[in-house]
Amino acid sequence: MAIPESSTSKPMRAQFEEFVVSLQNEIVSAFEALDGAAPAFKRDSWVRPEGGMGQSCVFASPADDPTHQSVLEKAGVNTSVVYGTLPPAAIKQMRADHTSMPLPDRPDGLPFFAAGISLVIHPRNPNAPTVHANYRYFEITEPTDSSDSDTPSEPKLLAWWFGGGCDLTPSYLFEEDAIHFHSTLKNVCDQHGPALYPTFKKWCDQYFFIPHRGETRGVGGLFFDDLNEGPHARLPSVDSAEGRRPTAAEDIFAFVRALGESFVPSYIPILEARHAMPSTPHQRRWQLLRRGRYVEFNLVYDRGTKFGLMTPGARIESILMSLPETARWEYMSDLGEEGTEEGRLMEVLRKPREWVN
Amino acid sequence: MAIPESSTSKPMRAQFEEFVVSLQNEIVSAFEALDGAAPAFKRDSWVRPEGGMGQSCVFASPADDPTHQSVLEKAGVNTSVVYGTLPPAAIKQMRADHTSMPLPDRPDGLPFFAAGISLVIHPRNPNAPTVHANYRYFEITEPTDSSDSDTPSEPKLLAWWFGGGCDLTPSYLFEEDAIHFHSTLKNVCDQHGPALYPTFKKWCDQYFFIPHRGETRGVGGLFFDDLNEGPHARLPSVDSAEGRRPTAAEDIFAFVRALGESFVPSYIPILEARHAMPSTPHQRRWQLLRRGRYVEFNLVYDRGTKFGLMTPGARIESILMSLPETARWEYMSDLGEEGTEEGRLMEVLRKPREWVN
Repeated sequence: MAIPESSTSKPMRAQFEEFVVSLQNEIVSAFEALDGAAPAFKRDSWVRPEGGMGQSCVFASPADDPTHQSVLEKAGVNTSVVYGTLPPAAIKQMRADHTSMPLPDRPDGLPFFAAGISLVIHPRNPNAPTVHANYRYFEITEPTDSSDSDTPSEPKLLAWWFGGGCDLTPSYLFEEDAIHFHSTLKNVCDQHGPALYPTFKKWCDQYFFIPHRGETRGVGGLFFDDLNEGPHARLPSVDSAEGRRPTAAEDIFAFVRALGESFVPSYIPILEARHAMPSTPHQRRWQLLRRGRYVEFNLVYDRGTKFGLMTPGARIESILMSLPETARWEYMSDLGEEGTEEGRLMEVLRKPREWVN
Repeated sequence: MAIPESSTSKPMRAQFEEFVVSLQNEIVSAFEALDGAAPAFKRDSWVRPEGGMGQSCVFASPADDPTHQSVLEKAGVNTSVVYGTLPPAAIKQMRADHTSMPLPDRPDGLPFFAAGISLVIHPRNPNAPTVHANYRYFEITEPTDSSDSDTPSEPKLLAWWFGGGCDLTPSYLFEEDAIHFHSTLKNVCDQHGPALYPTFKKWCDQYFFIPHRGETRGVGGLFFDDLNEGPHARLPSVDSAEGRRPTAAEDIFAFVRALGESFVPSYIPILEARHAMPSTPHQRRWQLLRRGRYVEFNLVYDRGTKFGLMTPGARIESILMSLPETARWEYMSDLGEEGTEEGRLMEVLRKPREWVN
């Protein structure tokens, strides 16, 4: 198996770690620049006793000051770099989630490395959409034989892959926002392969679906996983014309990096256009009902959240950072009916649309 | 297997159905009497196309009138009587949940009958606790041979059991409320067997535990399942002195009915004492954070909710009726510290207490 190292021979682990830390700074700075009157994000570094570390950058509007009108209501931009041994049960789950990749079975588990950035932004104005993005790199290696202490060498890679995506969750539908968001993503994808945008756009609509509501979480974006040098369950063969895509680790990294760097231009212009629009208590109520659906998706279906909640010693506050400040549930709500502004959103959530061609 | 019929030979199905409908009326009337100025509960009858029916009685404070100060904020009292065929996958899940009961395996599923009452009351005042109760009766029968149409006879019972419980979830701890609630339940239990209260109180603390938070949902109450004529995984043998308990269906029903009828005296006096207490925005904020935990428990762990969300065609609005009107999440909240009123609650949630001896 080709070892995913750069031409400068810096290991991909180190490259990806540098990337997420730098992207985190860039994104947090962009939000802080947008709302100079608001308190800064709170930077919170943590160490994982079993191996690894991370930084949570979190925004919260002052809790006991309801008159404060910051652009954001609640936001978190997390990075983490963790490693250790993946127990057999976790490998089993991982094998189920990553069917296109052969993961070896070992009774004593396998060493892993994971680095990623994950963010969720909940703005205050009901006209401004919530956004989520996540980019990650994963390695599974051979157990190192500690008895053979001659020369420390890089552990042998058994599997590596990139994953990620981003999606937009409006409470009120502005078609031009969905088009801008999707166009930005498509432009990045198309530079790396013609099948990437259509495949990952569809995957996103499928992943962020709430079966018990029969609706998607929002207007979608991209979702992908298991990107490596091997064949991919959802992508056409690289030997075909439409199958051209990055397969070397360096080239996939370039694609993922370009997506990460497109976050600010994909979202900040939307937020700038919406955050100061006039809004009504009625719109706020609908926004909180939609936040309720966000909670339902994250707690019931989201793979990362579920995995995190089941992991002993996981950092719960970072995992649940994605939840909104406030959410609302009404029994048989009268909001969302056909012919209303709320109903216009529901239509595209029930039947995902192609936003760009 | 003894058929659980009454001395008047009315089937237990019919008796239990009468019980839940009558209890629903009694409970809804008690809340309506307490707050004459509030709108009435909305009665919502529904029919399950696959077999069965139910009534949801729901209270919601007027959504667009934030000045309205009703005693309740959101409440639902549901009854349902459903029957049909339990698919093999559901039987498998049921076998895992009901380990003390042998459930036969059938490739074509098995007929079932389930009747129950389920309620969740979220009062508005942060000093008034949320309460939940649920009582249910379940039967699994032999498939009836439709080709043998001589005389319609009662289908043969393969398994039957009662389950239920109730629990109290305060945002602020009033020890006398927890003691009153538990005393009322213990008095009922003790009339039917000495091991019932201690066993079901402990089961409740275990069931309503939120592992990822390391805390219980509230100050507990009772939780029980699988009550029938057979041995019970958690209860001492009926042959022992401490094992005396109802085993005939009629006698278990009398116990469950007595518990159901104790709901109003166990809770209404607490609500009367708390609903008009002065409260602060700080207390409201804490109450909404606790509501967030309620959402976490119900969506991530509650067996009934999970089962319902996974059931195609289930009535989602009734299942999620248990969720609060509003819930709140803060990253690393500063509320709940030791030495505060909020911290006093956290102590008993982290280490469940014996409220009565």
